[in-house]
Amino acid sequence: MLGPEGEITTVGIGNVTTEAGATITDVQITYQRWGEFRGDPHGKNNIIVVEHALTGDSDATDWWSEAVGPGKALDTDKWCVICTNALGSCYGSTGPASQHPDGGVWGSRFPAISIRDMVHAEQAFFEALGISRVHAIVGGSMGGARVLEWTLMFPEQVDYALVLAVSARASAWQIGIQTAQITSITHDPNWQGGNYHGTGRSPDAGLAAARRVAHLTYRGEMEIDERFGTSAQPGENPLGAFRTDDHRFAVQSYLEHQGTKLTKRFDAACYVTLTEALNRHDVGRGRGGLNKALASSTVPTMIVGVDTDILYPYHQQEHISRNLGNLLAMSKLSSPVGHDAFLVEARQMDRILRHFIALTEETPSARDMAVAHGAYDI
Amino acid sequence: MLGPEGEITTVGIGNVTTEAGATITDVQITYQRWGEFRGDPHGKNNIIVVEHALTGDSDATDWWSEAVGPGKALDTDKWCVICTNALGSCYGSTGPASQHPDGGVWGSRFPAISIRDMVHAEQAFFEALGISRVHAIVGGSMGGARVLEWTLMFPEQVDYALVLAVSARASAWQIGIQTAQITSITHDPNWQGGNYHGTGRSPDAGLAAARRVAHLTYRGEMEIDERFGTSAQPGENPLGAFRTDDHRFAVQSYLEHQGTKLTKRFDAACYVTLTEALNRHDVGRGRGGLNKALASSTVPTMIVGVDTDILYPYHQQEHISRNLGNLLAMSKLSSPVGHDAFLVEARQMDRILRHFIALTEETPSARDMAVAHGAYDI
Repeated sequence: MLGPEGEITTVGIGNVTTEAGATITDVQITYQRWGEFRGDPHGKNNIIVVEHALTGDSDATDWWSEAVGPGKALDTDKWCVICTNALGSCYGSTGPASQHPDGGVWGSRFPAISIRDMVHAEQAFFEALGISRVHAIVGGSMGGARVLEWTLMFPEQVDYALVLAVSARASAWQIGIQTAQITSITHDPNWQGGNYHGTGRSPDAGLAAARRVAHLTYRGEMEIDERFGTSAQPGENPLGAFRTDDHRFAVQSYLEHQGTKLTKRFDAACYVTLTEALNRHDVGRGRGGLNKALASSTVPTMIVGVDTDILYPYHQQEHISRNLGNLLAMSKLSSPVGHDAFLVEARQMDRILRHFIALTEETPSARDMAVAHGAYDI
Repeated sequence: MLGPEGEITTVGIGNVTTEAGATITDVQITYQRWGEFRGDPHGKNNIIVVEHALTGDSDATDWWSEAVGPGKALDTDKWCVICTNALGSCYGSTGPASQHPDGGVWGSRFPAISIRDMVHAEQAFFEALGISRVHAIVGGSMGGARVLEWTLMFPEQVDYALVLAVSARASAWQIGIQTAQITSITHDPNWQGGNYHGTGRSPDAGLAAARRVAHLTYRGEMEIDERFGTSAQPGENPLGAFRTDDHRFAVQSYLEHQGTKLTKRFDAACYVTLTEALNRHDVGRGRGGLNKALASSTVPTMIVGVDTDILYPYHQQEHISRNLGNLLAMSKLSSPVGHDAFLVEARQMDRILRHFIALTEETPSARDMAVAHGAYDI
């Protein structure tokens, strides 16, 4: 049923019709799996789904190496951990940089997608594997947005959820900074209306500039300052008589490096597509508004935020926790690192994940409760 | 001695040699003045200097209309309020968009300047007017940086100071976001190495993109969200099947408007020059470090911050207040508005300014103390 341990495996799920009414044909979803599956694919089992963030991939043992593995908090000796690459990304699942069934690359033919479209694709992926229920879904940032939508779209398929460093909907500030990033890419002369693939020119400068700004929203300002302060890049003098691009502050060089590095591993159109999905993130849409949607949630869900998060400030996680229908627990990462703390603060995350797993083992799931009340046959 | 009330007046101050060793020849400083001068230009008098922020001008009765005027906190019936346009700006004082004495526009011939260079020019301006002492200097953001440097460079010329919403030096986060803005301008194909003036092409797109991001650092994220949330720009559908530039979220349209608006009133090269000056802001440079420099301050100085400031977080004003040699008072603007609160929260600012003025009237200045100890003749 499942692909070989750790290997990148791809599953076809057919067409996906987006929330906004476009159709993506012949969608492939790539995933990786660690740990043996145990239990009932339609009932209680040991699957923990890990959802990656914006530019992440299906290799959770890489980007969350201290959280996923034998003996770790998401213990692959005990749990079957599955991580898919999101719809719209460029790490195997279908996105704008993928081959179109009619030839060429999707490019501008790839529609705008929402977080819900990603979850729809992921649910279809599990259906294709013959799995209709998982023990838990866990994710941060864009991954957390997907987890939240999972609990609202398919509550009967998720026993427990852990949502890290995200909000119930995009805030205007997030949309503001994210649309600025999108524009930086789409106004790059090499963007070519989104059809740059195969032309030998790609909007790397725009993508790098977008990432440079994004990175400042992923990191805490105190951590950045502790690391770089006003230091010059070694061998350069940013205080010279004239400002020049080759005499930089250390932080400027660092951010340029972060931007350039991303262009070597990520596709600009996928970045636009996934960023736009974050702009459209809103659990309240079509559900009577934000708080009503959150209140309707039945899946026991733990919420975690970071005290110095610039992009998803902690009050946004407090907002979710105040309104969520079935709050399992609330926890705060205390760190100068900012948003990325859920990836970086390994020791705090270890405690949070172990606490979450323990709670899932001692708290009845919504389905357990329903069974106890006779609403389900097991 | 002083120009007519309210009128834009320009004073030549000769050459300015910058901290980094370049020379700006034949510098002009533009200013406006409200209220009659009273007192001794070299002793006690009623001059209050107001320092503008990054894209501000000498018309403090415009951008700080609720603070400066007859009967207002900075009461022009009582005080002689003077506001200069900063060196490097484009509102009359010499900057990269000004005429070069040898012909043409300064353009790339204009050197990098620091906050200290601006203060040097301003001190020379007062010298040219025959004034060697003022009652108080007041300013926020880039204006606050100038105030802080005034108190360290010319402590014997300033009786009291009020520093709003700034830090003792640029943080790495600030340098990061500010260099990203500079790059957005200097990588605009119309930048032409900084010599675009008179070519019919100017880097408006780069300047607008820079301002769009900057604006998100000037405003609090909760205020932006309260105003715009996830709303669509009227008549547009940002949730359509495909993302397009003409179907926008309201906040996106607002930020684009802010960006475009700036290009109609501000010069891109001046924006680069002043932003670079903020990058170089560091009161500790050449003074044995930040805290030693602050500790050496003798001018009674009041520090004010904004609790939701993203660009100059409140802990930076706390840092100044903890280390300053002669702290007059500390105050916090409580506002969802963020950094711009010192311009926007008129009622709180009114109380702060009145409190500051009262303190200046009841607290001995450093010079008063020195006189009392026989160090000065009056």
